[in-house]
Amino acid sequence: MCSLYQMLWVHFSAVYIVTGFICILLFYEYKYISSRRISYFYSSEPQPHHFTILVHSIPTSSSGSISDSVQSFFSELYPSTYLSHVVVRRTGKIRSLVNEAKKMYKRVTQLRSDSTQQKNTQRGFPGLFSRKNSVIYYEKKLEDIEENVRLKQLEASLAGEEARAAFVFFKSRFGAATAFHLQQSVNPTHWITELAPEPHDVYWPFFSESFMRRWISKLVVVLVCTTFTIVFLIPVVIVQGLTNLNQLEILFPFLTSILTIKFFSQIVTGYLPSLILQLFLKLVPPAMEFLSSIQGYISHSDIEMSASRKVLWFTVWNVFFATVFSGSILSMFNTLLDPKNIPGKLAVAVPAQASFFITYVVTQGWTSVSSELFRVIPFIFSWITRPFTSQDDEFEVPSTPYHKDIPRVLFFGLLGITYFFLAPLILPFLLAYFCLAYIIFRNQFINVYAPKYDTAGKFWPIIHNSMIFSLVLMHIIAVGIFALKKLSLASTLTMPLPVLTLLFNEYCRKRFLPIFVAYSAESLKKKDRQDQNDATMTQFYENLVNAYKDPALLPIQHSQNNDNLRSPLISQA
Amino acid sequence: MCSLYQMLWVHFSAVYIVTGFICILLFYEYKYISSRRISYFYSSEPQPHHFTILVHSIPTSSSGSISDSVQSFFSELYPSTYLSHVVVRRTGKIRSLVNEAKKMYKRVTQLRSDSTQQKNTQRGFPGLFSRKNSVIYYEKKLEDIEENVRLKQLEASLAGEEARAAFVFFKSRFGAATAFHLQQSVNPTHWITELAPEPHDVYWPFFSESFMRRWISKLVVVLVCTTFTIVFLIPVVIVQGLTNLNQLEILFPFLTSILTIKFFSQIVTGYLPSLILQLFLKLVPPAMEFLSSIQGYISHSDIEMSASRKVLWFTVWNVFFATVFSGSILSMFNTLLDPKNIPGKLAVAVPAQASFFITYVVTQGWTSVSSELFRVIPFIFSWITRPFTSQDDEFEVPSTPYHKDIPRVLFFGLLGITYFFLAPLILPFLLAYFCLAYIIFRNQFINVYAPKYDTAGKFWPIIHNSMIFSLVLMHIIAVGIFALKKLSLASTLTMPLPVLTLLFNEYCRKRFLPIFVAYSAESLKKKDRQDQNDATMTQFYENLVNAYKDPALLPIQHSQNNDNLRSPLISQA
Repeated sequence: MCSLYQMLWVHFSAVYIVTGFICILLFYEYKYISSRRISYFYSSEPQPHHFTILVHSIPTSSSGSISDSVQSFFSELYPSTYLSHVVVRRTGKIRSLVNEAKKMYKRVTQLRSDSTQQKNTQRGFPGLFSRKNSVIYYEKKLEDIEENVRLKQLEASLAGEEARAAFVFFKSRFGAATAFHLQQSVNPTHWITELAPEPHDVYWPFFSESFMRRWISKLVVVLVCTTFTIVFLIPVVIVQGLTNLNQLEILFPFLTSILTIKFFSQIVTGYLPSLILQLFLKLVPPAMEFLSSIQGYISHSDIEMSASRKVLWFTVWNVFFATVFSGSILSMFNTLLDPKNIPGKLAVAVPAQASFFITYVVTQGWTSVSSELFRVIPFIFSWITRPFTSQDDEFEVPSTPYHKDIPRVLFFGLLGITYFFLAPLILPFLLAYFCLAYIIFRNQFINVYAPKYDTAGKFWPIIHNSMIFSLVLMHIIAVGIFALKKLSLASTLTMPLPVLTLLFNEYCRKRFLPIFVAYSAESLKKKDRQDQNDATMTQFYENLVNAYKDPALLPIQHSQNNDNLRSPLISQA
Repeated sequence: MCSLYQMLWVHFSAVYIVTGFICILLFYEYKYISSRRISYFYSSEPQPHHFTILVHSIPTSSSGSISDSVQSFFSELYPSTYLSHVVVRRTGKIRSLVNEAKKMYKRVTQLRSDSTQQKNTQRGFPGLFSRKNSVIYYEKKLEDIEENVRLKQLEASLAGEEARAAFVFFKSRFGAATAFHLQQSVNPTHWITELAPEPHDVYWPFFSESFMRRWISKLVVVLVCTTFTIVFLIPVVIVQGLTNLNQLEILFPFLTSILTIKFFSQIVTGYLPSLILQLFLKLVPPAMEFLSSIQGYISHSDIEMSASRKVLWFTVWNVFFATVFSGSILSMFNTLLDPKNIPGKLAVAVPAQASFFITYVVTQGWTSVSSELFRVIPFIFSWITRPFTSQDDEFEVPSTPYHKDIPRVLFFGLLGITYFFLAPLILPFLLAYFCLAYIIFRNQFINVYAPKYDTAGKFWPIIHNSMIFSLVLMHIIAVGIFALKKLSLASTLTMPLPVLTLLFNEYCRKRFLPIFVAYSAESLKKKDRQDQNDATMTQFYENLVNAYKDPALLPIQHSQNNDNLRSPLISQA
């Protein structure tokens, strides 16, 4: 009995020591990453998005266009720093037409190369004439579409197709930051400013709608996302239920003979449910990305950050809590609605699943990270589609799927933190996972993926918050376990720990988070001063206005006939 | 049975209609008050606090004083708008000396006038000589203190006594607002900016300490305040327990004969406990004001706003919930920790106290508002102290004790909203209360109180939030009551109501709250432009630098001898 008590006190001190150690690591890591972020900013060349803000919810005025009112509003408020602006235009239709034109162009080039090859190898083959005809037919069609695109682009450049949003350019980083931080209009729901993303990071089909519409769409997405996360398991459990032998024999009678063989029935009952769960889980990151994209974010990076958060909470709820409470949503809810008993219930349920999660680290962690190395799914996909694509298609370097990988790695961090004192056996497996992940992701970042945008460490707060959540969850479990083992003193002594952790988090939020939101006046001025003597800035300002151009409004020219149309039809706004 | 059901449906629709009606009223009131706030700003003369920000947590540099680093920092960041600054100095000691001098001066003048009177009336009275002597003695002492004050003031004007805070003046409102909104330093915990309060609203003994000290003191105050609010009832109940007859007879045996008389015993048991509670409650507003003042607020208005919020929550917890749950803190906590059953428990407990709260409106509301008219307590106080004060003391016009009155009025609003469908009988009493309060407070504002500062409607968000809280509380009670009466459809149909109310509140927060935090760029520029052609602005800028002067550093001169010292010793920083 005495040794059990001593063991529990060892656990107790381990909880304190590990929490302190993780907090110190988190603090120095946050500090390091914020200093890196600032030095990245100091060492950067003049970048368009530092001089630009995005304004949305521009009120429509009866007289004059949106462009005019942006011009007059900003030149009045910021006479010394305002440079120019570009109004965003509604280009949804043009975008689909441009895509159509691209597809058509692909088909035409493929047909053309095929017909040239055939000309060279089998002269006078009967199919030649019809093939040449179809080339001509598709070229004609391509020209029609391009003509249509040009017309639509011309239409869009007129005032009627203006969205209520604009990119506004300033002469200095400081000027842009001022306009971002101040509330512009007397009505706080008009002239809302955001920091502009990098030009190639802009998510063009973004909602350029009014304040109310954006707000409502955000609420709806949050609601849908929460419901999706909570009830996700219901269909999965139903589908998994279909895979038990009796059900299968009723649905597919012809399988009866196979299923009587022990080997097959073992595979079906042992592996199929888990496979179905995995397939469903594979659908989650794209679904969350889609939800984030209709939430009103203006850049790919914001969408991926939001999707990462959503996938993370989804994983915590549907893998951790669903496993711990054996997948019963009702019991999960009952636990949540009875906060007094949460530690007790967790203390009973969490240790029971220790062996499951050790297996999970091996089966899910190790395999996922190794399959990442070989990129199995993209490989299979390209292997299947290769016969249908022509060889002169440009190869696109893939970008890192942050919203798939970050939540997974963080979830293993959560497992490590919550289980280290319940089942220390999990630690070597996790260590192996993290070493493997470090090596493999390092390789992928250097050799495989190309970054689509530079966030300058903006993802770090997600990681920090997730670690804090893991710590607090671990403390709650620890309180429950010590109470369960009748060690009420240890249980009481653990209670200040979550409070202290949350205070530490609050301090970090005040000390570091502002650095990840916007740059300080001091650093902005410093950079601006560096540029003052730079002769290339005039050139930069000229390019700045053209940096934020909707790709759908760029002149397209795939067909080779009418070269006179190659010149852009749209004048600068 | 059918009629009971119909009655409940009437209640149900009343809940919906009244909620909608109150929300509409709240929306238009918020809109009206924000428009008034903006037009007040537009019509105001140039005010020092519009051109000033307060900077605190200024990092100490090894070379040079705080003043130098403020000068170099702001003239570098805001070269075109920075005007000047005044460093705050540690004047705690001087302040107490000045107070001492004032007291001494009072005594001297009183003695002097007494001796003159005595000279006129009773020439050659033996006490005259000693009295004259004591006048000379006190005058000497006063001179000593004044000398001391001057020395300390001189010391304070040296760099050593600089606090790490400064008022920074700008040439335009827009410049000050820019400096307020931007994060100044690379380290977000240094150079923290706040909007400056009005010069006479500054709370001079404010914490001019580092970021960490301010943050910790804030946390400590929040903790103390929460504990105070929660456990307040324990001592009160104990003291009330002492007032039962047996206890009294044991404690004060001589009372036995009186207490056997039925009339006295009725008064003691019926009135004494309530009197004790009232006396304790009277201590709450000053206690909360004290807590707010050590929380690190820089202005009297902020302190009063914070104290109002504290007193409001204190009242809701210790009057509403304590009455409803019969004062058992344990049962109150158990209810809070079991969120599923909150509506049910409230539905049982709240209607039971309807008659108590109707009486409460009459006894507390009507009497408090009438005693407000006569200002009974200040009257008694001045009546007691009059003999001890001299007649030539200046009479100070009292300022409105917002933190006493606002929570009280709001609490009656809460009672009205929560009880209107349970006990509509409360409504006429409340109506009478509000009419009375309107008339009396109108009179007091016009004829009695003088505003100490202009907040331009900054208290309104407190009132709005309290109304929203009352609505949501009422909805929770309604859900519980409909469930209790087995009208589960009505109960379910009521559930969206709190969600909708909170969404409405969220919309109001986005639409109106920013107006109460800071003025928009548009309105600031408009005001600045008005001033451009104003010839008096040069004069205003000159006065601006002197506007924020610590009263403790102003030259004092009560003694009449050394007139050569009347000139200020401190040069402008």
